[in-house]
Order: sequence, then structure tokens, then C-alpha cells
Amino acid sequence: MPKTAKQKYAVGIDLGGTNVVAVLMSTTGKVIAEKRFMTFADKGPDFVIENISDNVKIMTRDAGTAIKDISRVGIGAPGPLDSKKGIVLVAPNMPGWKNIKLKDELEKHLKLKTGVENDANCATFAEKWVGAAKNSDNVVGFTLGTGVGGGIVIGGKLLRGVTYTAGELGHVAVEINGRKCGCGSNGCLETYASATGIAKTAVEEIRQGRASIITEMVKGDLNKITSKTVYEALLQKDKLAEEVWAKFIKYLAAGVADMINILNPEIIVIAGGVINAGEKLFAPLREETGKRAFAAPFNACRILPAKLGELAGAIGAAGIVIFEGDYYGI
Amino acid sequence: MPKTAKQKYAVGIDLGGTNVVAVLMSTTGKVIAEKRFMTFADKGPDFVIENISDNVKIMTRDAGTAIKDISRVGIGAPGPLDSKKGIVLVAPNMPGWKNIKLKDELEKHLKLKTGVENDANCATFAEKWVGAAKNSDNVVGFTLGTGVGGGIVIGGKLLRGVTYTAGELGHVAVEINGRKCGCGSNGCLETYASATGIAKTAVEEIRQGRASIITEMVKGDLNKITSKTVYEALLQKDKLAEEVWAKFIKYLAAGVADMINILNPEIIVIAGGVINAGEKLFAPLREETGKRAFAAPFNACRILPAKLGELAGAIGAAGIVIFEGDYYGI
Repeated sequence: MPKTAKQKYAVGIDLGGTNVVAVLMSTTGKVIAEKRFMTFADKGPDFVIENISDNVKIMTRDAGTAIKDISRVGIGAPGPLDSKKGIVLVAPNMPGWKNIKLKDELEKHLKLKTGVENDANCATFAEKWVGAAKNSDNVVGFTLGTGVGGGIVIGGKLLRGVTYTAGELGHVAVEINGRKCGCGSNGCLETYASATGIAKTAVEEIRQGRASIITEMVKGDLNKITSKTVYEALLQKDKLAEEVWAKFIKYLAAGVADMINILNPEIIVIAGGVINAGEKLFAPLREETGKRAFAAPFNACRILPAKLGELAGAIGAAGIVIFEGDYYGI
Repeated sequence: MPKTAKQKYAVGIDLGGTNVVAVLMSTTGKVIAEKRFMTFADKGPDFVIENISDNVKIMTRDAGTAIKDISRVGIGAPGPLDSKKGIVLVAPNMPGWKNIKLKDELEKHLKLKTGVENDANCATFAEKWVGAAKNSDNVVGFTLGTGVGGGIVIGGKLLRGVTYTAGELGHVAVEINGRKCGCGSNGCLETYASATGIAKTAVEEIRQGRASIITEMVKGDLNKITSKTVYEALLQKDKLAEEVWAKFIKYLAAGVADMINILNPEIIVIAGGVINAGEKLFAPLREETGKRAFAAPFNACRILPAKLGELAGAIGAAGIVIFEGDYYGI
């Protein structure tokens, strides 16, 4: 029986609340084509899915690749979802997304076997496949954004857990009586080490009367403070910004050290806009992590910036259906 | 070529600083014989290893089992160790144990293929094989004693990590600026949730002037306070003991919730003398964990007391060489 052996490509899609990124990947890990378009989440799931399908068809056509040369489609979506069945249970920022059979719907539209996976898992898998952690089989990924997302690869495979929710690395407790977290708990890593958490630390300090050029930078409107504001003030050697940055790194290091002590991985990849700070982030992060983690697993673990930027989720979505099709029953 | 197919037994050994426990296990998971004896750690590694070998020979002989009916030997040892090569790198409470080739030595004495594994890993593997987590392939084990040990089973196999140190669950940060830990970090789970940590919380409170029957129970000598003293005072409804117990459970719950959020396991097994408290431990532990962990993985995870008591390490040591012989090259 002829199988997929002659098909050289897979499509990867990263479905976000605002934008969608799609890529056409060769099975050897090369980006053949990419396409970005609006999600139009407000128009509801049917529209979103049809729009994605149409854009994927256009992307493959423009690339001169016929659908028959594509083996599979992978799509990364914000959780919680049932990756085994390909169902998005809820998508917080997308109206109407409740128990949406995303796998079935995309298969109907595109006539291609499809796998659905958590977006943070996809991003980590991408870095392991063709990014910062290429050729490593034991990788932990942190993505610092509004929250802190995570993904875990063990023995070359995604760790999903028994209800497919493993890898919620933003929700380890680093300060048991600390900041209230959106998840309902207190003192989760993401309340301190996300981009939002960095801004919050600055706002708290300024509200307590601390002087900083940050206040001028946002013309007194503290709601406008972002992690970028803090970083720019840091570059100008603002004292408060330095403290806020150090606190962010101390908390992130606690989360990174936790993963080193628990999983003893080969590489930890940090993603998100904040990695543009380069060694201003990574040098102190390594130092602080070394103070907290056991020496042997710390010395064996490289802590690296992600390489794939905004394409990571889409690339990883293609990767998982190429390498872990069995899991998705495709 | 005749292999081990006809051999129905394996020996498991749990090497502790004070005592050694050895078991003869059937490959179906039945304890055929057990033997406990002193380690005599002060007499050095050569003596300890020879003493273990002799006792194992006696145990098997007394059980009427010839060495030729035994396939393999597994031994759990305190870390750090190189489980791949079977070398104990350091054993903190055992003089002279530095880079000891425990696998080679035991193989020489017993003429049986041997695997060496971290003792906390063995205990968790035992609970997964024939204990509280029987028939589950995704298990996390915490052992509460002087410290907090841990083991992780994913997909039915021990998670070892790239330098064999995975599973240091006692050293996740739960209070980033908290108590100094023996590992060099601050606020590690074990500084609060070990038996030692419970006693420490009580001592701290009493030193600050809090009244408690605990003070009478130890006749004013606060160094004599143990987790058992706290538990006995709790049974007498001592107010301070109730607070200390609640604090212990709150911290342990943070560690348990971390593992649920990170690994999404099916079962979490808690071991150590403190589990004799039964539902006085497990009822509030489940409640507190539920406040911190995500609902879906929390609801899918059972939090259970260990079943195998002091035999766990030895039983697991036999289990790992029966089921994971490939890893040890045997």
C-alpha cells in the first residue's frame, strides 16, 4: 500500500488570538514558505478555520507545491486542549471556541491528516528540531510573554502527561505566599518572570515612591510600563530598572534551577521578546541559576536563547506531525 | 544461546548509611525473602561490599534458592552516582566512599549481573511495580525523611536525566528567599516539608515565645523536637502543633502541585514515617494541592500513601534490573 514516503512536506500552523502564522516545511526541517494573516477571532470558529484553510492552500500554491506533496498538517493552539483527539476545549481569547474539533474540521477542509498540539509544546519541539536545541533529545523550553509558557522534550519526544497538560512551567510556586496568579494560585513563576511580571515589579516600586526615569519615559502613566520600558531604562543605568531586572532574573533562575533539579535536561531554551537583551539576560541568569541548582546537572545543562522567533510555534507544529504522527493517530 | 529466561528471581538491595535491606524477589513481584543487617560503614567500602555479598548469599541459601536461579542484582545507593557505569561518586555518610565501582565489585563477589541506582528512584519504581502506584506508568514519588527525596516514572520508565540526577524534588524553590538549604540554595521544599523541616518550624515558633505542650513533651530541650513530637501534640489538639502541621502541608502541597503542573502524572506517592498520620496528612494535602494546581491535571492525579515501607528501596532495586536491564548494560 502506498504510504506517505514520497511526500516531502508538512504544513505547520500557529493559531494565536490575533494572528496566525503558517509555514510549509520540508521533512528535513527547511522552511519552504511562510504566511502570516489575521485570526479574525471575533468572527467565530467556523470562519477562523475556513480562513486558515484558504490561506494554507494559497501558501502551498504560491510555493509551487501541490497538496498531494504534503503529508500532514500540524496546528499549535492555546490550551487547554485534548491533543489526542484534536479538540480545543477552551481558547480564552477567542469567542465561541469551546470543544471545537479542530483536527476534524481542518481535515475536512484541507483533506490532509492533521494533529493539534499545545502551542508552547510546539515552540519547544521546534527549537529541538531545527533551533537552539538542535540534535538534543532532552530539552526544556520557557517562553516569556504575557505569561510564562513551557514545553518539555524527554528522550526526543514531547512530554504530554496523562491529560495532555504537562509543561505548565509558568505555574511552579517560587514564592508560596507571593503574588496572586491568574491560575488561582499564589507566587507562580509567571507572576514575576513574565514580561507582565517585570512591568508589575517596576509599577509596584514606583507606586511606593521610588524615583526612576521610567516614570518620565511613560509620562507618568504607569499603566504604560512594559518590560521593554524597564529594559530601556536599564540600558540607561537607571538604578530602579537595574533592581527590577535583577529581581526578574532571580525569579526566572529559580524556575530554571527547578527544571534542572527535576529533569536534568541537556538544554534549556528561553524564548520571548525579552531574549533580545542577550547577555544582559543570559549572563546573570546563568550565574543565579548556578547558585540554586545542583552542580552536576547545572554544569551539564546549557541555557540558551531561542533561535526561531515568531516562527517557532508553526515550525514545531509541522515537526510534531512529521515525527510524532503515531501519537495523533495519523 | 541460553539466556536468563529460566531464572525466576532477582536480588534487590537498599544500601543505607546505617542499615542494609536485601530482598529476594520473584520476577512477578513477590517478596520471597528479606534480610536486614548493619552497614558497618565505618569499616570502609571493601568491608561493606563483602558483608553485603555474604548476607545476600545467606539469604538466598536460606530461601532454598540457588544463585543460578537468580538473574540479576539491583542495588539502591544514596547519590550522587553514575548509574550507567554503576559507580558511587560520593556517599556523604559513608567514610571512604568516593568513586567506588559498586557494580563491578558486587559482580565480582556474587558472579551476577548488577545494576546500581539512586535509592529514591528505586523506592518510586517499587511503588509503581508492586505498591501504591501499581499498574500506573506515570508516577511521581516523594520520600519525606531527613530531607525530601524524589523519583519520577514516565511511560513506565525511570526518568534519569542526562547526568542521572533527575528527580531532586526536594530542591524545588517554594520560597525564594526562604530557609537556607543544605544544597546551598534557599527556600527549597525540603527545608519546610521534610521531617526535619517540620521540627524546625516548631522550634522556631517556640523560640519566639509561643506556648505549646511540645515544650513539656521534650522537657524543655528543643533539640529533642521531631516531626513525631509535633504529630503527637497535634493529636492532643495543641494549637501550635496544628499551625506547624498546617504550614508543613501547605509547603508540601506546593511541591506536589508543582509536579502536577509540570508532569501531569497519574499518581503521586508520598513515603516516609510521616504518612502514618493517614488522612490527617492526606485530606488537607489534597485540599491544599487543589488550591494550587490546575484543575484538569489535579483531578486526574491521585495522591496516595506509599505501601511498601522500608522494603521499598530494596524491592525497587530488584525491579529496575528486571525491567530496565538494558539501561545498565546487563
